[in-house]
Amino acid sequence: MRFHTRKWVKPEDLNANGTLFGGKLLAWIDEEAALYSIVQLENPKVVTKFMSEINFMSAAKQGDIVEIGLDVAHFGKSSLVLKCEVRNMMTREKIITIDNITMVNLGEDGKPKPHGKTQIEFIEDRLKK
Amino acid sequence: MRFHTRKWVKPEDLNANGTLFGGKLLAWIDEEAALYSIVQLENPKVVTKFMSEINFMSAAKQGDIVEIGLDVAHFGKSSLVLKCEVRNMMTREKIITIDNITMVNLGEDGKPKPHGKTQIEFIEDRLKK
Amino acid sequence: MRFHTRKWVKPEDLNANGTLFGGKLLAWIDEEAALYSIVQLENPKVVTKFMSEINFMSAAKQGDIVEIGLDVAHFGKSSLVLKCEVRNMMTREKIITIDNITMVNLGEDGKPKPHGKTQIEFIEDRLKK
Amino acid sequence: MRFHTRKWVKPEDLNANGTLFGGKLLAWIDEEAALYSIVQLENPKVVTKFMSEINFMSAAKQGDIVEIGLDVAHFGKSSLVLKCEVRNMMTREKIITIDNITMVNLGEDGKPKPHGKTQIEFIEDRLKK
Amino acid sequence: MRFHTRKWVKPEDLNANGTLFGGKLLAWIDEEAALYSIVQLENPKVVTKFMSEINFMSAAKQGDIVEIGLDVAHFGKSSLVLKCEVRNMMTREKIITIDNITMVNLGEDGKPKPHGKTQIEFIEDRLKK
Amino acid sequence: MRFHTRKWVKPEDLNANGTLFGGKLLAWIDEEAALYSIVQLENPKVVTKFMSEINFMSAAKQGDIVEIGLDVAHFGKSSLVLKCEVRNMMTREKIITIDNITMVNLGEDGKPKPHGKTQIEFIEDRLKK
Repeated sequence: MRFHTRKWVKPEDLNANGTLFGGKLLAWIDEEAALYSIVQLENPKVVTKFMSEINFMSAAKQGDIVEIGLDVAHFGKSSLVLKCEVRNMMTREKIITIDNITMVNLGEDGKPKPHGKTQIEFIEDRLKK
Repeated sequence: MRFHTRKWVKPEDLNANGTLFGGKLLAWIDEEAALYSIVQLENPKVVTKFMSEINFMSAAKQGDIVEIGLDVAHFGKSSLVLKCEVRNMMTREKIITIDNITMVNLGEDGKPKPHGKTQIEFIEDRLKK
Repeated sequence: MRFHTRKWVKPEDLNANGTLFGGKLLAWIDEEAALYSIVQLENPKVVTKFMSEINFMSAAKQGDIVEIGLDVAHFGKSSLVLKCEVRNMMTREKIITIDNITMVNLGEDGKPKPHGKTQIEFIEDRLKK
Repeated sequence: MRFHTRKWVKPEDLNANGTLFGGKLLAWIDEEAALYSIVQLENPKVVTKFMSEINFMSAAKQGDIVEIGLDVAHFGKSSLVLKCEVRNMMTREKIITIDNITMVNLGEDGKPKPHGKTQIEFIEDRLKK
Repeated sequence: MRFHTRKWVKPEDLNANGTLFGGKLLAWIDEEAALYSIVQLENPKVVTKFMSEINFMSAAKQGDIVEIGLDVAHFGKSSLVLKCEVRNMMTREKIITIDNITMVNLGEDGKPKPHGKTQIEFIEDRLKK
Repeated sequence: MRFHTRKWVKPEDLNANGTLFGGKLLAWIDEEAALYSIVQLENPKVVTKFMSEINFMSAAKQGDIVEIGLDVAHFGKSSLVLKCEVRNMMTREKIITIDNITMVNLGEDGKPKPHGKTQIEFIEDRLKK
């Protein structure tokens, strides 16, 4: 799994107990999953359809750096299934893993649409073409 | 299920496609689950430990009102298991259901601590005492 | 008065002195008043026209839970007059009361428009129809 | 009245109807009143105690520039009473006037404390001393 | 240089080390530069084109008041060159100076367009006309 | 240059003209520079000291994906000099380049402190040790 994205836990990210607000973390993950899918599927109209169960394994506190890793679990016909792991760079603990985040590729009409992709493409390569 | 909380979908809540950002919705749910648990368990140190799978059934758009309902699934020894349903008041569609959001009651030491509760208490009653 | 809405005071809600920022509280109240009115008047185009005087009776701090209660003071022809009370669930102190929040029902043309309502309707009932 | 502060109405400031969210405007006013008072009273511990009635006279939309004017109505012993006017620079309409925003000067113990001021001081002058 | 704008450093403005987040300060400056230019050039379509080097001379902490000063360096044909200084009202230290912030006046077509201005106009005067 | 970070331009990131707010982009860059430096220097107390001139070459609009690339220009004794490029993945245009972002490594006393680093380390490698 490649960990592209890092977030720095700032006061605005804390819950009232002073630890990283879980909802904020879920919002970060959802945004990363959307970004990853848009880029892989080359379509800006991609929506989150499903997340499998989420286990909060450890907390993070102000000043910690959180890394969000995403990988493709498999390519569906009009969907892309991702897996996600979030870890704390300071403590090296896992914070969350999610086995299945299903993103759906939509057409202009807002309905699922086959994307024709079957494997990960590296953007660096694509941009060099 | 009682739907205590309503959110008005404003421009700041939208994703880049102009519909309600899923991550924002998850953040709202997580905050409501924390609030509900703090009040029921009469302890401000409550954390989200687990969410079962999340199915995004429909979208919401700017101006829609979203209602978040929570109910107790069961009382554990040091945990409280909630179920959640989110619906769109404008379209009457379900947006999300989550069967199990497990909140854990923590002691001063940050470790799980029995809460001694076995049933829902209505705050209105408690405050009147 | 029914207290539907609870807010958890997080670091992002604090002023520079570390207490709940009054402006944030007013923003929460305004949003709740709009939501309440939209639902009662069954019209999404409702605007805040007037707030009577606001007395800040006590402060709230990080981790406190703030409850916002709203009730109908009376139904005007094209307006809805609400009263509001905000209290601190932790300290049981009142934070604010506002006797008159006047919301105006607008038509498509942006002008005040009679709403035809004369009493509170419970949404739970309305949705069951 | 001097209009020191201008705000540019951006998408994040809009309500779900696409006009400036009233609650946001109240939050801006409250922050300006606190800043003005801190500077005049030379004390960072100043809190909003009271706002007289607020009349929303016109709306503002995305891209409008809103000007917030504040002036001293009078100096109390441990308070400072401000008046406020907000206007829309684009349309030259008044948006809000508030006749009395009472700010209270607090001591280290959090109790009201005389501030010894009886007239406006211009910061430019004070800084040049 | 006139210092029109003051910001109160709140928890939401801090970086993870608890001092004013530099990026937030740059965002405040950029917004003020846009506001200043829109008003001077009497055109809402103004964009930031260039900022000369930025030296962070001192930090600010929660509760500090930061003043942002802007002045015109010179009027170009379709541009307006501003200089900026930010200082800490509490400590009287300079925080940042920027010698050249170039704003460009755009026409309806999004292309640079002559603005016809050659000197600063005071809005108070203009509004009184 | 490696482009680690992507941002999805959402309504909350727009200025009042509906394009990506320059100040938001500068805030994103500053945060990424801090994160990059903290990780490379293995010290959470790192501050932005200097940014060389910034040229805004193109705009971005809602729905665009913006990539932020950072690279080390050179290692100072107690500083780390980065260069930055931001590009629009949708249009493939450059948005900004900054040749010199100087980050300073601080000790416990808040003073510059030698960091002892002379070359980039890959976190993936460091974490595997």
